[in-house]
Amino acid sequence: MQLFFCHTLNGSNASLNDEESRHLKVLRKQVGDSIACIDGKGNLLKCTILKIGKDHTDLQVDDCQFMPLERKYALHLLIAPTKNNERIEWMLEKAVECGIDVITFIETDHSEKHRINMSRLERIAISALKQSGRYYLPEIQSLQKLSDVQLEPCFFFAHCAEGNKNTLKDYFAQQSPQGNYQVLIGPEGDFSSAEIDRFYKIGGQGLSLGTGRLRTETAGLYIAMTFSALS
Amino acid sequence: MQLFFCHTLNGSNASLNDEESRHLKVLRKQVGDSIACIDGKGNLLKCTILKIGKDHTDLQVDDCQFMPLERKYALHLLIAPTKNNERIEWMLEKAVECGIDVITFIETDHSEKHRINMSRLERIAISALKQSGRYYLPEIQSLQKLSDVQLEPCFFFAHCAEGNKNTLKDYFAQQSPQGNYQVLIGPEGDFSSAEIDRFYKIGGQGLSLGTGRLRTETAGLYIAMTFSALS
Repeated sequence: MQLFFCHTLNGSNASLNDEESRHLKVLRKQVGDSIACIDGKGNLLKCTILKIGKDHTDLQVDDCQFMPLERKYALHLLIAPTKNNERIEWMLEKAVECGIDVITFIETDHSEKHRINMSRLERIAISALKQSGRYYLPEIQSLQKLSDVQLEPCFFFAHCAEGNKNTLKDYFAQQSPQGNYQVLIGPEGDFSSAEIDRFYKIGGQGLSLGTGRLRTETAGLYIAMTFSALS
Repeated sequence: MQLFFCHTLNGSNASLNDEESRHLKVLRKQVGDSIACIDGKGNLLKCTILKIGKDHTDLQVDDCQFMPLERKYALHLLIAPTKNNERIEWMLEKAVECGIDVITFIETDHSEKHRINMSRLERIAISALKQSGRYYLPEIQSLQKLSDVQLEPCFFFAHCAEGNKNTLKDYFAQQSPQGNYQVLIGPEGDFSSAEIDRFYKIGGQGLSLGTGRLRTETAGLYIAMTFSALS
């Protein structure tokens, strides 16, 4: 089933933005045709095309089915973007396929990347969402300083230094992931020792991601896939 | 520590191929310098450079340390290559980072890809191996027809059709992965119903990869990461 992503849904009215409207035209859809849409908030819609504009399409909602979230956990990944854009982009694509709720990009002591292209990341996330048959678009939060981030009690953080670390399998040996989890992943040069010390002091839980040394983007995806696999 | 990959190791003699020799020159290494090498078979070598040729470097092995494999399982992934080369290449890079033993590329009923670039894939695997700090290079087997592949008893296969399926967490609820495992992943259009019927008939175990629909390359990586996470 071909799915479209509607950016606005208001009762029986919905609309597609410029990108989705272009997609609609490529598929030669016309006024009066019926299409299936998701809104990224759990709604699966059956719509009739009312008007196809240059950068906007108006839809009438004929049916709206709410799809409850199947996961029992909510995963918030806080990750330093990689120097190479492509690497963080594919991490995002794959994390959306596996299920994730919030991604926050963070600037850390060793960060070398100070800008990200939010609109491109959002397009990638929407495309991955449609492809994966999921209904919930993760919230993507723009780059912010690590020191400005509100860390929840018992957040996880992965690092390569010495220190008290466990695997996610150890942490979830008694019970599958249930509830809200924050996981921090550092940049190519890892978190600084000052950052790691602070994390332990404020109650963070050190995370081991197995025996190999994972790249930043691999580590981010490892988190999303492991939560999915353990739940 | 800068690592080089040596393609031949014979007692106290080792050598680097053209690509690694170029890398050596970029780093301005000279005859008499000491370098660290891995051979992809568990050996960590300390070597002295004897001769730097145009496409070949001779080394004297001063010390050889054998690093035992830390994993208790051996994972053999059989996967249909994606139409887009990049997708299978990054899957390979990430699978090497997480640990994998054999990758066989397979041609299935719905395959649209009939050629792969083996030497490029091997270069990517070596680069990922050096970067990840692992010592075992997976064996990469060239494209072969699914019907020619020797399937072991109780192999796993992932598919999107109806049928008896469990997650890897279910299969390993009593005991972590230990031993040898074969896992099959189909192409973009999934395995055909004839292939799926045959798998079940010969004792294959259907695999569910969670609630979303994963792309081929995401599924392959999900397998490698999940085995790592569950072990």
